Amino acid sequence: MRVYLAGPEVFLPDALDIAAAKKRICAAHGLEGVFPLDTPPAAPPADRPYWMRIYLGNEAHIRSCGALIANLTPFRGPSADAGTVFELGFMSALGRPVMGYSNEGAEFLARTRDFLGAEARQRQDGGWEDAEAMGLEDFGLADNLMIDGGIEAAGGVFERFEAARARRWRDFTAFERCCERLQARR
Amino acid sequence: MRVYLAGPEVFLPDALDIAAAKKRICAAHGLEGVFPLDTPPAAPPADRPYWMRIYLGNEAHIRSCGALIANLTPFRGPSADAGTVFELGFMSALGRPVMGYSNEGAEFLARTRDFLGAEARQRQDGGWEDAEAMGLEDFGLADNLMIDGGIEAAGGVFERFEAARARRWRDFTAFERCCERLQARR
Repeated sequence: MRVYLAGPEVFLPDALDIAAAKKRICAAHGLEGVFPLDTPPAAPPADRPYWMRIYLGNEAHIRSCGALIANLTPFRGPSADAGTVFELGFMSALGRPVMGYSNEGAEFLARTRDFLGAEARQRQDGGWEDAEAMGLEDFGLADNLMIDGGIEAAGGVFERFEAARARRWRDFTAFERCCERLQARR
Repeated sequence: MRVYLAGPEVFLPDALDIAAAKKRICAAHGLEGVFPLDTPPAAPPADRPYWMRIYLGNEAHIRSCGALIANLTPFRGPSADAGTVFELGFMSALGRPVMGYSNEGAEFLARTRDFLGAEARQRQDGGWEDAEAMGLEDFGLADNLMIDGGIEAAGGVFERFEAARARRWRDFTAFERCCERLQARR
């Protein structure tokens, strides 16, 4: 089964090394990893802008895969990378299995409070809000409930692992657990 | 046509007032606005956890709608709210029209550089990266290219409007433009 490897590692200078490492782990579990930077199944129209060709290539990759594993490690804020979350939602609606993992172990509420710092304040009912009075989700989840819920609804898992900070984008412990769970489902 | 009104306004104390205002604007353009906090078309199973019932309710809302308008104003970081982005990806895969808007006018690159502050650094080729050497997207878009691309692929628009900071969650100029475009498409 082809598995789309969603995640912000595409922004790293050694993205192709990370892609190769993830594909090896996939292969060890009987899966074929498909990385966003791989050549798409069909070439996007040459007259579209570069960024749109990337979008169309990624969408074609996703449609060609039977499952998706998303790296949902927090990215420039308390939540996962926006592009990865879009892809997770897209694959969820296609009705195929989705798995997610984070290399940060803390809950979403703790991370959001940490991100907001002194701007986070407690409401009279004990809940938390930010400086604009917007509430903080407090469900013991790993990210926004639509992310945890979408994975749950698809029968997937959201694996959390507290990786060493320096290995945040290169620790594959939680990723491999997703591969194992995906293989076990088949 | 029923239109799902995705956005982080659900976290505001006056979310229902905002829902009512958006629904009035929808109605003026021949559309029926559906807010995430509305009663879902079918009650989620009572034995599921509260957060999962919210997820299932929102998914049912989305499936019941013929289009989606997402409030993609940056939320706790340079990108849009993660839950809203998930919903945008979900509706995109259902193949129905999606529109997005932001009440911040600045490009994604400028916002990300602003968010990173001194951690943003320029590469030799002129591009930008963060403290972990992860590149910053520089396509002149409003957010991650999967968001702009998903809207473009669905034939939608991503409206940007520089609202007054204090009215960031309550200015409906860009939202109304999305309603107009949606109505014009029909």
